[in-house]
Amino acid sequence: MSLKGRDIISIRDLTKDDIELVLNTAEKMEPYARGEKISKLMEGKILETLFFEPSTRTRLSFTSAMQRLGGAVMGFSGTSITSITKGENLTDTIRTVERYCDMIVMRHPMEGSTRLAAEVSSKPVINAGDGGNQHPTQTLLDLYTIKKVKGKIKGLDVVLLGDLKYARTMRSLSFALAMFDANITFVSPKGLEMSKDILTEIEDISGKKPIQTNEIEAGLKKADVIYICRIQKERFEGAKYFDQTFYGVPVRMALLSLISGVI
Amino acid sequence: MSLKGRDIISIRDLTKDDIELVLNTAEKMEPYARGEKISKLMEGKILETLFFEPSTRTRLSFTSAMQRLGGAVMGFSGTSITSITKGENLTDTIRTVERYCDMIVMRHPMEGSTRLAAEVSSKPVINAGDGGNQHPTQTLLDLYTIKKVKGKIKGLDVVLLGDLKYARTMRSLSFALAMFDANITFVSPKGLEMSKDILTEIEDISGKKPIQTNEIEAGLKKADVIYICRIQKERFEGAKYFDQTFYGVPVRMALLSLISGVI
Amino acid sequence: MSLKGRDIISIRDLTKDDIELVLNTAEKMEPYARGEKISKLMEGKILETLFFEPSTRTRLSFTSAMQRLGGAVMGFSGTSITSITKGENLTDTIRTVERYCDMIVMRHPMEGSTRLAAEVSSKPVINAGDGGNQHPTQTLLDLYTIKKVKGKIKGLDVVLLGDLKYARTMRSLSFALAMFDANITFVSPKGLEMSKDILTEIEDISGKKPIQTNEIEAGLKKADVIYICRIQKERFEGAKYFDQTFYGVPVRMALLSLISGVI
Repeated sequence: MSLKGRDIISIRDLTKDDIELVLNTAEKMEPYARGEKISKLMEGKILETLFFEPSTRTRLSFTSAMQRLGGAVMGFSGTSITSITKGENLTDTIRTVERYCDMIVMRHPMEGSTRLAAEVSSKPVINAGDGGNQHPTQTLLDLYTIKKVKGKIKGLDVVLLGDLKYARTMRSLSFALAMFDANITFVSPKGLEMSKDILTEIEDISGKKPIQTNEIEAGLKKADVIYICRIQKERFEGAKYFDQTFYGVPVRMALLSLISGVI
Repeated sequence: MSLKGRDIISIRDLTKDDIELVLNTAEKMEPYARGEKISKLMEGKILETLFFEPSTRTRLSFTSAMQRLGGAVMGFSGTSITSITKGENLTDTIRTVERYCDMIVMRHPMEGSTRLAAEVSSKPVINAGDGGNQHPTQTLLDLYTIKKVKGKIKGLDVVLLGDLKYARTMRSLSFALAMFDANITFVSPKGLEMSKDILTEIEDISGKKPIQTNEIEAGLKKADVIYICRIQKERFEGAKYFDQTFYGVPVRMALLSLISGVI
Repeated sequence: MSLKGRDIISIRDLTKDDIELVLNTAEKMEPYARGEKISKLMEGKILETLFFEPSTRTRLSFTSAMQRLGGAVMGFSGTSITSITKGENLTDTIRTVERYCDMIVMRHPMEGSTRLAAEVSSKPVINAGDGGNQHPTQTLLDLYTIKKVKGKIKGLDVVLLGDLKYARTMRSLSFALAMFDANITFVSPKGLEMSKDILTEIEDISGKKPIQTNEIEAGLKKADVIYICRIQKERFEGAKYFDQTFYGVPVRMALLSLISGVI
């Protein structure tokens, strides 16, 4: 099944095969993402970036991805919103702006808003964050970073550490890691544990029961990868941090190319 | 007479032949506007969008048109205005920014401002709205939509309905419709009738006396097209609405190409 | 020594040979800057414009330069700043955004900030103004304008007139003029004279002692070029003003091409 024409609202919209296709394509995109080679894959195509709440980093990353493919970018962010939404609802806005482009990347403070936009739009919609609910390209970026650093995902011992109750991106990542047969350990302060339905789901997918603990030292004992969320970084001074910023470009180049059907 | 290098400030700047050229060219632009074909007509050219008041829809439509032609877009909108106009008047601003581009699309709250800009600028200026005065590309879009839906404009019974006294875009549209020999009926509440000078002008152009009435039912009896302005849409639930958003792109592509002289 | 990969933070980062290379390259860029010829020199390359304080004119000039070379532009200005800098310092911001581009043009209200950015970034950084400290592309533009109007710089009698104490751009320009063996006269009101260290430096470079006076008439007696800074223009009604706006484009095209190493 091809990714052509599909909306990417949640990581759950993607099968394991889909994700592997994105990660393998991202690998091939790297020299183009670095500007070492010139691509015209998306020449003549337009990506519309609708940022109803600001996120300069995500917006610039998508912009770079599209421009590195020879495509054009247009849209609005932050302050321009009032003008387009004045007197019209989100549905009307999407129905208008989809006429100007080939694909839409959208960020919106309201949970579920990007799914609504995808249902209204005849052009593919990529969710760049809807109220802290889903942010699937971030999950793809996390998977790609792990694969780049460790050479694989399968069978790795991955520790997800931090506030696991409210950080919903952790749910998406653990779901995806389970698809790739990683061994997952959740480490969190008491009262901020990962919810039980995710634990059950992970075991259903991978056949491996995830470990859950409040003891940091115990949790980190056998870790290939530690993913930290919303916790004081000062506590992990010795840890080797990895900057995944650059990888956001080839991953998003892969996704944009596959969705538009040019590869 | 070619459109090359000309300013488009009012629909009155265009002859019937000019308008027909734009509409016929727009027809040819449609596959490129949809992204089905790739155009490089405007490669290397720069369109400057100067939006002294926000209008995301119009700005995005022009941006899409230029990008679909392979051209580049730059400019400012809304909040950046203060910086460029700080300590300088409109004339100075135009004289500066025209040096960076091939064409200017401008929207400004002050009536007559775009005409002033066109007189100062050595590059063509397209009016994207000057204080509710003129918005010629909207009139072209209206004509194109009618032609697409009805196959022609000549001889159609067109009803212009709503507040006809203060909606100046209605004047531009009725003027253009008269050039194309449409039969025009004006329907408005009492006290909001179309001004008499327009009625006279329309008869002068088309040789047909427009009908003027306050009775909606009577007005709509023999309508091929109903154009509604500033009135509660709820009163016309049964009417068949037509979304003209997409057509804005091929119409503006046609205008940009013709003005720049690449076709 | 090539300009490839180098940061341009101060005019002092450039040798006389470097400057001559930029000015000669700018000359060749003119037909492309005017849109008479199409260049694809920077195809596939991305310029990032980080304007932490607004400067529409400088931003549009760099944007035009990059687009005329077939390159892409992305970035932020003014209001978007808070989002990217929220919770991170300038160093973190630069380390992130440099991953998305080939070169950075940056303006920031804090003196020394662009030098800091250049030390952090692995991509070349061009200073577009750091708190009124340095603005090297403006100095290059001044030199280019003088060369265009007078045919040369060497041996010209150049008067720098105005508030010379606080206008730091005058220091950069006089430093550069001294490298080109111009004869410099400083004219300022009492108390706003050029600082003594610059006078000494200029004599060291050119071997010519600059003239310093508070008498406008005396100062202007033998002037080929008068450069006026922060003084009422009304006093010089007869003077022949020269609009250097356009020249900003070819000069910046030259600099971008040379730094990126495409020529």
